[in-house]
Amino acid sequence: MGISKPAAERLARLARLLEQRIEAGMDGFVSSSELEQMTGWPSHTIRKDISRLGAGIPGNAEEADAFSTPSGYEPGGLAACIRRVLSLENAAHNCCVVGLGRLGSSFLNYEAFAGTPFTLRAGFDSNVNRIEILQGEFPLYPTFRMKEVIPRFDIKFALLCVPGECAQASADKLFSCGVTGIVNFTSAVLSAPPGTAVENVSVLDALGALAARLAFNRLK
Amino acid sequence: MGISKPAAERLARLARLLEQRIEAGMDGFVSSSELEQMTGWPSHTIRKDISRLGAGIPGNAEEADAFSTPSGYEPGGLAACIRRVLSLENAAHNCCVVGLGRLGSSFLNYEAFAGTPFTLRAGFDSNVNRIEILQGEFPLYPTFRMKEVIPRFDIKFALLCVPGECAQASADKLFSCGVTGIVNFTSAVLSAPPGTAVENVSVLDALGALAARLAFNRLK
Repeated sequence: MGISKPAAERLARLARLLEQRIEAGMDGFVSSSELEQMTGWPSHTIRKDISRLGAGIPGNAEEADAFSTPSGYEPGGLAACIRRVLSLENAAHNCCVVGLGRLGSSFLNYEAFAGTPFTLRAGFDSNVNRIEILQGEFPLYPTFRMKEVIPRFDIKFALLCVPGECAQASADKLFSCGVTGIVNFTSAVLSAPPGTAVENVSVLDALGALAARLAFNRLK
Repeated sequence: MGISKPAAERLARLARLLEQRIEAGMDGFVSSSELEQMTGWPSHTIRKDISRLGAGIPGNAEEADAFSTPSGYEPGGLAACIRRVLSLENAAHNCCVVGLGRLGSSFLNYEAFAGTPFTLRAGFDSNVNRIEILQGEFPLYPTFRMKEVIPRFDIKFALLCVPGECAQASADKLFSCGVTGIVNFTSAVLSAPPGTAVENVSVLDALGALAARLAFNRLK
């Protein structure tokens, strides 16, 4: 494919930053050193990531050139090309939240999904009381109804917010119901069948990365 | 330094995975292809990351060799070397939570910090009622007391869980009180003064990365 997983992740974030910039009224050309400022990544990495957008998909090479001008990148065109290449432009990816404790329930009225390709369609918790008490902008179900609800809403992605000791069992259940991608908020290391993917979101990894970066700054 | 930011992040995560493996009783040698399985990263990337551990710090080259055997890596030695090189082994990095809504309050009884170099020392919220109602394993304060509390507990890291529109103002306040690293859970793009660092934790980035990876799998 010519685009690595880290590059795909950087490009997905870059598209979002460019769109935020345009929304803020800054729609002028943007140089790779400005992109470095915005993202914190070295400008040569960004240029390389962008140059790979055209690779591998017929017709993209021309499109990839169209937003690259001598005065910099045209932000709207670049963001659109990233979304197209990464399949982030399609209608909606239907998502669910699994585990409605404090973290999971923080997604019940989560406004940041508006205007993104991701829509929350359902929430699940094994505690029926919790489901009756909580109110969200999407329906909540007991876990045993996954098998019926997930295919009905064509849900492909899950935000996994259950306790660590239940994480693999929940993931197995989700995959067996047709979910193909899990954002894993637990500290468990999940195994996933072929054709599926897990993305870990970990505050401890983020803190570890911060500590490592600050240690490097001191050593430099 | 010879270790890039993404490499540092991978290594920090690798150390944690190795330690979880040891805790689970699997303390035998581990090959780079097993590490690939555990982490999802290509084995050559992992080997390269590990080979850079010795670079730049006197004495590390020998230490970095000590855990590398013909039968694979010795997991305890490798994890300890990563922690030492990345300065993740030192006593405690004191942390605080800022913004005690659903997401922020999910850290009030967060057990995953036990046994890590990170300790939550304080929580802050501008809503005094919320502070009186919530109960955590560490004290909670109104935001206006940051200037006094953060230096007192020698807090260097903050988990930023405020609404996006307050994020930069909160970050500025934290940096001015002596915080050097922020884990940013908001969707705002933060600017940070020299010598400080921000690590973004974003469910939308994670979903974008999942969508991109799954699209690649289909195209491969």
